[in-house]
Amino acid sequence: MTQHKVIFDTDPGVDDALALYYLVRHPQVDLLGVTTVFGNAPVAMTTRNARFLLQAWGHDAPVHCGAAGPMTPDMPPEFWPTHIHGDNGLGNHPTPEAPVEGPETAAQFLIDTIRAHPGEVRVLAVGRMTNLARAVQMAPDIAGLVRDVVIMGGAFRVPGNITPAAEANIWGDPLAADVVFGADWPVIAVPLDLTTRTFMDSATLADLGARGGAGMQLVADLSQGYVGFYQAAGYDGMLVHDCTAAVYLTDPDLFTLTQGEVRVLSEGIALGLTLMNPADRQGPLGAWEGRPRQSATLDGQPDAILARIAQVCTA
Amino acid sequence: MTQHKVIFDTDPGVDDALALYYLVRHPQVDLLGVTTVFGNAPVAMTTRNARFLLQAWGHDAPVHCGAAGPMTPDMPPEFWPTHIHGDNGLGNHPTPEAPVEGPETAAQFLIDTIRAHPGEVRVLAVGRMTNLARAVQMAPDIAGLVRDVVIMGGAFRVPGNITPAAEANIWGDPLAADVVFGADWPVIAVPLDLTTRTFMDSATLADLGARGGAGMQLVADLSQGYVGFYQAAGYDGMLVHDCTAAVYLTDPDLFTLTQGEVRVLSEGIALGLTLMNPADRQGPLGAWEGRPRQSATLDGQPDAILARIAQVCTA
Repeated sequence: MTQHKVIFDTDPGVDDALALYYLVRHPQVDLLGVTTVFGNAPVAMTTRNARFLLQAWGHDAPVHCGAAGPMTPDMPPEFWPTHIHGDNGLGNHPTPEAPVEGPETAAQFLIDTIRAHPGEVRVLAVGRMTNLARAVQMAPDIAGLVRDVVIMGGAFRVPGNITPAAEANIWGDPLAADVVFGADWPVIAVPLDLTTRTFMDSATLADLGARGGAGMQLVADLSQGYVGFYQAAGYDGMLVHDCTAAVYLTDPDLFTLTQGEVRVLSEGIALGLTLMNPADRQGPLGAWEGRPRQSATLDGQPDAILARIAQVCTA
Repeated sequence: MTQHKVIFDTDPGVDDALALYYLVRHPQVDLLGVTTVFGNAPVAMTTRNARFLLQAWGHDAPVHCGAAGPMTPDMPPEFWPTHIHGDNGLGNHPTPEAPVEGPETAAQFLIDTIRAHPGEVRVLAVGRMTNLARAVQMAPDIAGLVRDVVIMGGAFRVPGNITPAAEANIWGDPLAADVVFGADWPVIAVPLDLTTRTFMDSATLADLGARGGAGMQLVADLSQGYVGFYQAAGYDGMLVHDCTAAVYLTDPDLFTLTQGEVRVLSEGIALGLTLMNPADRQGPLGAWEGRPRQSATLDGQPDAILARIAQVCTA
């Protein structure tokens, strides 16, 4: 049975919590550590939340605090999406410990761990790409040592969710994302093109909570505010963006990859737009010239992905 | 029988020539005039070419010279696509008259003609949008007086042809295109999403030339270099971008419209990208806020469009 050595880079965040639970429960995942980043909430909160969740589930993976803000210059002021993830980043579910920021050890943990297991480590990054970009800038050798980098992010052939151009994780630090897509490691992006189709309805979430024991019931409980956000928009359930990317690690056959060079716009009205030059395109490359060919899961099997989540989280 | 009062804004250009022939031959089109613009060749050549074609076909529509360069600041130097449209813009087909530039009367002709026929004039623009943008900036009242503005341009859910981001007509003056999409007149864009599927093969082109008389034979003759460009890329025939947009004027039922606010990027690595906020999208609008809702023919019936062109050009 293949073991996957995984570092989870995350900003919990409600759908991050489901993804983390999937990783904790999956028998083939060896979760080496969690690195945190600002995004769904300030990094002090997302770090606290990651520790809270792992403790609740009895997992001893280390949690390393990461970036508190973007590397992109001249960004608009940060806007915490409390209407989606609650005031505490976990849908206002009680979190006994107080938020504590720093010291920032995430990038160094990524570097050290990737170097310690050459060719083995898989990074799953579901927040801003700041920690990953910082790590590969500090230690370019890790690009040749990591097995792959799977990210939840981008909107290639569909509109964004923060603006018509941009998906939230990329929008929050577009320069970092451009660094990650431009490094010589294999990047697989799991974008809105697919994750806006992995919709878990309320009844299924309640059923998983009831059948999955206390760990999954915690996920269901803290997801209620997130579901409320979707209900206000007319959908009774929730998109499981981050957990869809987690399923890619273990079940790549449920995903269809498109390949090409990727650029991210880090300025202007389309800040955060991800643009791929598809492998089958003919014509001049412009600013895509010389970039490595990366992958994006523009299609896949949403029902099978949701079934896999249900299976792993209730086993 | 509906008559369509049409002004054709164009940069002939080989596929422009087919579009112009379609307009000249169509019994329901009343071609009020032709305005020219730089693009496929310098404006002195495109103006000469428009006059040459109309004279060859015995049509007396006036030809008004337009913009020699873009309104977008800080543009890269112009690059004339002689490998596609030949050294003279008409596939090196002999054009007896010399190119003559100016005076620039195109924008004023657009204004005067639209004002002379309130609610009736349809502008078909298949080159850079500079003349149209200049006209609506000089006389904003024409936005409420024109019937519609049909443009060949953009790439909404497919890659561009000049860069992975940009289609040629928009790329050549992106600020002008942003002005056109932002004015309060109905714009219908016929983009690469559809025109990369309206492919006329060499055998059909030869057949139309043989069956269509001297006028269509001229189109077939001057298209040979353009076909050669596609043959070098592995396709035996040619895309009829501009004529596809002409067919929209007369046969809108062959096209499927998507609606939304449109922005065009006029700076940065994705210069010339067209981005629509689709009408069914929920979420913040960003720089799309307050823009008029325009249309793009993201889908349609390529075979029926090609059949219509064949019918009109051989009748």
